[in-house]
Amino acid sequence: MIIAVDAAGGDFFPKNPIEGALFALNEDASLQIIFVGPEEILSEELQKHTYDKSRVQVIHAPEIIDMHDSPSAAVKSKRNSSITVGINLHKEGKCDAFVSAGNTGALLAASTFILGKLEGVLRPTIASYYPTLKGFRLLVDAGANLELKPEHAFQFAKMGQIFCKQVMGIDNPKVGLLNVGEEDEKGTDEMKEIHQYLKQLKGFVGNVEGRDIFPAKADVFVTNGVVGNILLKFGESIPSALKHMVKESANKGLLSKLYLLAAQKVLRESLQPFNYENVGGIPFLGVNGISIVGHGGSSPLAIKNMIKNAINCVQSDVNGKIVASLN
Amino acid sequence: MIIAVDAAGGDFFPKNPIEGALFALNEDASLQIIFVGPEEILSEELQKHTYDKSRVQVIHAPEIIDMHDSPSAAVKSKRNSSITVGINLHKEGKCDAFVSAGNTGALLAASTFILGKLEGVLRPTIASYYPTLKGFRLLVDAGANLELKPEHAFQFAKMGQIFCKQVMGIDNPKVGLLNVGEEDEKGTDEMKEIHQYLKQLKGFVGNVEGRDIFPAKADVFVTNGVVGNILLKFGESIPSALKHMVKESANKGLLSKLYLLAAQKVLRESLQPFNYENVGGIPFLGVNGISIVGHGGSSPLAIKNMIKNAINCVQSDVNGKIVASLN
Repeated sequence: MIIAVDAAGGDFFPKNPIEGALFALNEDASLQIIFVGPEEILSEELQKHTYDKSRVQVIHAPEIIDMHDSPSAAVKSKRNSSITVGINLHKEGKCDAFVSAGNTGALLAASTFILGKLEGVLRPTIASYYPTLKGFRLLVDAGANLELKPEHAFQFAKMGQIFCKQVMGIDNPKVGLLNVGEEDEKGTDEMKEIHQYLKQLKGFVGNVEGRDIFPAKADVFVTNGVVGNILLKFGESIPSALKHMVKESANKGLLSKLYLLAAQKVLRESLQPFNYENVGGIPFLGVNGISIVGHGGSSPLAIKNMIKNAINCVQSDVNGKIVASLN
Repeated sequence: MIIAVDAAGGDFFPKNPIEGALFALNEDASLQIIFVGPEEILSEELQKHTYDKSRVQVIHAPEIIDMHDSPSAAVKSKRNSSITVGINLHKEGKCDAFVSAGNTGALLAASTFILGKLEGVLRPTIASYYPTLKGFRLLVDAGANLELKPEHAFQFAKMGQIFCKQVMGIDNPKVGLLNVGEEDEKGTDEMKEIHQYLKQLKGFVGNVEGRDIFPAKADVFVTNGVVGNILLKFGESIPSALKHMVKESANKGLLSKLYLLAAQKVLRESLQPFNYENVGGIPFLGVNGISIVGHGGSSPLAIKNMIKNAINCVQSDVNGKIVASLN
């Protein structure tokens, strides 16, 4: 298994991608890593580590796409960026997957342009892990498709189900359409039409509401990219908001020092299900390859788990199963 | 000040509306209450309480609109429901405001049909309180307008600012457009157009993201009713989800009994900013009257605060200020 890692992506490159990938390398003897990025910077960082050099390669990619670059423009103009070079390596079959903590839009654009779509797929989508009381579930679309056509929504739901089953180990994944009420006739005309399409899908449980996310009333929550993106970023902000609230209560003298320490410990443990580091990255579903993007602030642990996630996608043949189900 | 109270609305009528309103009556000597609902049921409940009978009136409304009734149909077919009778009382000037923990859609429909719109208002909107690290802020629209036209969004933002200033005591309220990114050109065509309209508004801080809600980067978060409604219900589910998570950690043996008790106490205190009982209800902005709706599960405390909120709306002349600002 060869995984290419964007060593010039995210807020903490090259340190975190390299450290995380070397963790993964250490845990899996059959793994090989290709680091993609500016050679000089990468080599300097790699010198700080001890690792099995026979399983690590560096591919030079001098240009850097940062978080502020416009995705499609960056992919077209920076042909020597780590993202473009890495995705091209994957296209050429030189690695089994590419993972990045870089610019999500640029990686999506590069994946779509260079890898192309899987046979039968109308549109690729970003499916995001979402924390619930039953563990992570899937939110789709998380920002790639701001408007949702019924035939796209149907495919996103189906691809989400396959990912849930194959990678997340959820049997018979349930699909719910995020809506403003449970009744079939709720929502905009677009949502009503999507509801009708989804009715043909095995596992569709109907409309679900905002309050149904935490109890995981569905395993795949289908929504448009606007709702998905806002919910995703809102959800990510919950843990730090809570920590802040607890601290504020303490500052107001409502809590004794002992209570505060206990509460902080409890919060840390209780909020583990929210910890994105445990999954590391979110997959683009529908592209002809395995391309995973992580949070810009990815820690080494997150990078390691993103690589494991990629391996999981390859080994479970998610893409083969998507093609089989759509054709 | 005369407030009419829907005593046949919500999950716990007549008990909670009556208990809550009598609390309010007790705290404010200038307040008069009109209970609207089935007379027999209300009288029986009122007999359980001691209160100043000279300031309380019961108006008979035998029909009940429940949570499953279709809003507009219910308003048209159940002309003797507490909602229709109560809103008509307000229309006739027999009370200064109407508050209800009943069917939101039905109250919105009745308020719009019977009270009509304020001069210059294109569409009424539901503005919802939203918990942030700085206290409650406003989310508009929270479900009344699933699609958002730019000219409506502009008015919602303006009405939201006035409500923030007059009722919530927030000076120079900032308006943000919930979007998938901060840059001006982000979002759907609809959102880009709304952004252009909002640029003309004093206090507009631009696009804001899901992660900007908790830190209250804006005071008025403008969004369509789909996003607003999903976010609102998701937000409401956070406290119980957290309590569940803490309990789960305890059940898994991760926490000692002592830690658990401490954490539960801390959570209770820290989550006070989330407690909707403290505000009680959300106003419809743009209708020609003061009509406030609360959560179906409203406690007596929530009902009391909903009444206080209504008084606040009347005394600060929110509606007069909205008309002045729009015309």
